Amino acid sequence: MTTVNALFGKPVKVVNVGLSGFAESLASQGVDVIDVDFRPPPIAVSRLSRTRSGADVEAANREAVRRIVSGQAVVTGLALARDVIPGMNGRILLHAGPPIQWDRMCGPVRGAVMGACLYEGWAGSPEEAEALASSGGVRFDPCHHHHTVGPMAGVVSPSMPVWIVENPTFGNRAFCTMNEGLGKVLRFGAFSPEVVERLRWMADVLFPALDRAIRAIPDGIDIKALIAQALYMGDECHNRNKAGTSLFLRAVAPSLARTSSNGDTLARVLALIDANDHFFLNLSMPAAKVLTEPAEGIDGCTIVTTMARNGTEFGIRVSGLPGRWFTAQAGEVEGLFFPGFSAADANRDLGDSTITETAGFGGMAMACAPAIVKFVGGTPQDAIDATLEMYDICAAEHDTFLIPNLDFRGTPVGIDVRRVAETGLSPRLNTGIAHKDPGIGQVGAGLLRAPMDCFASALRAIEAQGDGESSPTGAGGHPGEET
Amino acid sequence: MTTVNALFGKPVKVVNVGLSGFAESLASQGVDVIDVDFRPPPIAVSRLSRTRSGADVEAANREAVRRIVSGQAVVTGLALARDVIPGMNGRILLHAGPPIQWDRMCGPVRGAVMGACLYEGWAGSPEEAEALASSGGVRFDPCHHHHTVGPMAGVVSPSMPVWIVENPTFGNRAFCTMNEGLGKVLRFGAFSPEVVERLRWMADVLFPALDRAIRAIPDGIDIKALIAQALYMGDECHNRNKAGTSLFLRAVAPSLARTSSNGDTLARVLALIDANDHFFLNLSMPAAKVLTEPAEGIDGCTIVTTMARNGTEFGIRVSGLPGRWFTAQAGEVEGLFFPGFSAADANRDLGDSTITETAGFGGMAMACAPAIVKFVGGTPQDAIDATLEMYDICAAEHDTFLIPNLDFRGTPVGIDVRRVAETGLSPRLNTGIAHKDPGIGQVGAGLLRAPMDCFASALRAIEAQGDGESSPTGAGGHPGEET
Repeated sequence: MTTVNALFGKPVKVVNVGLSGFAESLASQGVDVIDVDFRPPPIAVSRLSRTRSGADVEAANREAVRRIVSGQAVVTGLALARDVIPGMNGRILLHAGPPIQWDRMCGPVRGAVMGACLYEGWAGSPEEAEALASSGGVRFDPCHHHHTVGPMAGVVSPSMPVWIVENPTFGNRAFCTMNEGLGKVLRFGAFSPEVVERLRWMADVLFPALDRAIRAIPDGIDIKALIAQALYMGDECHNRNKAGTSLFLRAVAPSLARTSSNGDTLARVLALIDANDHFFLNLSMPAAKVLTEPAEGIDGCTIVTTMARNGTEFGIRVSGLPGRWFTAQAGEVEGLFFPGFSAADANRDLGDSTITETAGFGGMAMACAPAIVKFVGGTPQDAIDATLEMYDICAAEHDTFLIPNLDFRGTPVGIDVRRVAETGLSPRLNTGIAHKDPGIGQVGAGLLRAPMDCFASALRAIEAQGDGESSPTGAGGHPGEET
Repeated sequence: MTTVNALFGKPVKVVNVGLSGFAESLASQGVDVIDVDFRPPPIAVSRLSRTRSGADVEAANREAVRRIVSGQAVVTGLALARDVIPGMNGRILLHAGPPIQWDRMCGPVRGAVMGACLYEGWAGSPEEAEALASSGGVRFDPCHHHHTVGPMAGVVSPSMPVWIVENPTFGNRAFCTMNEGLGKVLRFGAFSPEVVERLRWMADVLFPALDRAIRAIPDGIDIKALIAQALYMGDECHNRNKAGTSLFLRAVAPSLARTSSNGDTLARVLALIDANDHFFLNLSMPAAKVLTEPAEGIDGCTIVTTMARNGTEFGIRVSGLPGRWFTAQAGEVEGLFFPGFSAADANRDLGDSTITETAGFGGMAMACAPAIVKFVGGTPQDAIDATLEMYDICAAEHDTFLIPNLDFRGTPVGIDVRRVAETGLSPRLNTGIAHKDPGIGQVGAGLLRAPMDCFASALRAIEAQGDGESSPTGAGGHPGEET
């Protein structure tokens, strides 16, 4: 560089565009280098405005966003999964992400499946559970095919209690199990006796207490309103749920007291919620689900209505092709690991919790939650930048979910696969990290991006609609729901 | 300006330094003008490093900040004021701010005094109460002379229950009444029958329930830790207490359930806390008091240990002159008013709640609470700027109260009257606004600065220490405590 500096008569700086290895090499030699994080867009496109069948994409997208933003999300009670979730009959287990069978399931989903078999009494030991599940003795179906979402492994069995979250504006409802807490828990693939024991206590004690309390509140509890408030209070309601959990406890506590006859049980219920800052996640997720589902099935619409991972594959669905999954390999999470664990222990990206980003919060609302970087890594400025970037791939700004740090600007909402393809920016996700082996549990939390390929495939499929090349009920249609 | 532009051959801009009237006049004529908000420092000083008696100011200030920052604040229970507050015997009422008697009391303090006389049964009607209070039948003393703080009027009578907040590090404790809620309440000067009735319910039902619950928690509830968490959750714990209130409810609810035998009463207690987002203020204030009191009385120390207003005067006390108040006229609040009210209805600045700024949160931590601008006015950027400015007048950064939006920088703590004098910047305050007449209540909330004069007077007094010109137990010493 000395020679170069002499040539120009003054010090020069290097601007590196592309592979950062070049910049790192110069930087290590003490050269002043600016590394531009640039990748060419994966597919060169002029913006699709009409499908081959003639659908108006902009109008379709406006309608999708209108439905997502204008819906409501109210928890009205709980029930056993088999009593409310369509198609939960027989030996069926729901799981997170796109469809998958035992042979391709990752470790933590297998672990959760084994735990659910033990919980249901379908097996007496982990070995029996594994034998049953691997031999076709259990039917598997995605949560998303049953108006349901599940964090991490997302396994739901027929006897598990689930929250009922309603969207009175559009008349639909969504379901999710209750959050089990931290440490060794089913959703991270643990299945030891204390995991199953806790699930039984939740069904026997927690479920009836919370169900009584919520049904005694005349209009239920407005989860969308709690999310909006929690976004003012440092949560993004995906990986930070401390405010949401606190607000939910405030909202339900008086009714819990009014409807409980046993002070000790009441104290245990309140202490369980207080001990788990993620308790609210299992309410923010079905809220996101119930808000996004009405946007499914709009002809020509390029808005994403589902993003979900099963730990092996990442899958999306777009409104214009409602039954069809577009999948790619699930990503590796860059994260902060608990003491004693490292990236070598990490399973690939897992869970239905990316429904929160789909509905316009979670990773979309990182600017609301600067303190989250202590959990998932990065700096508060990164959190602001993450949200700012997401405006480039979203169709609109939310009118209810607002960001104080951005002068009360609405969160980015309505991921448009056209914009993802044009910008080369895929949605930013934040997530917990499960150990890759069954039976262990959570090992950390972190950040990543959704794989670009599924967005490009979805765009090509929408564009081709009317060609006879693809059909809205193609591969990945949800038979589970109809059975 | 056209002539001037011709002279220079290009458009010129005006930079106005000083009285903004000049800038406004030009701006109204369409001239491009930058108005610099500049005032000369009120007293030209070289930084005081040693008092005339030889005390080392820097060392004294380091010690004061060490004590403020390293203390603890734990609520361990409640009691009736007369049973725990020193000197609460006979017909005595405590009030916010520096010492004041009936003849100079503002409307809302008079209203609260009348309400307290009715509550205590010292008078049977508002007229009797006024006659009693105005004729010397009640002794008045500042809360701050009794290890006590009170929001707004801050009136404490002997039969009112008070929180007990302890600082085990330094062995001191502080007291504050429970927050009554919003609307017509004693602290804003209301005294109608429902106000007094609510106070009675609080003493008869709320007090024993909360006292039992907190005493059943082995180490009490760590309010300093809740403040630190709430600062991550959009509160500054003075005028925004939504997170603090939520976290406190979480912390106390299980024990409340365990120690209550009546479900309906328990439900009412929980609902009362849930209905009042400022419930936590009356815990954050005594926490600030118990943290700052150990810093009082350090020879030569220029750190502020008290800022408080009685609605007529604003007063401060500095560590090096612990018994002495330095006062100036209380400021007018620029605020947002409730529908039907305007600045013409507003009483001057009122209350002990500026103890929060004294302890390194409240206005010092505005950057934590961008959403507060919806309540007190301004923009989120103003909130960030307010905190940044306060670093210029504070001696240190807190090691426990951190600001996510400033990359987890500690809040400014330890207001140094030297720096206030040097910079011409006085502390920024945010506050509720009471109606100026007795009996009405809150009319808004807003922002202002502490009056500069008392800081300049305090600096001169510290500087002169050893001259025999001033004494640490001069005017405003607190006889109330010793009686």
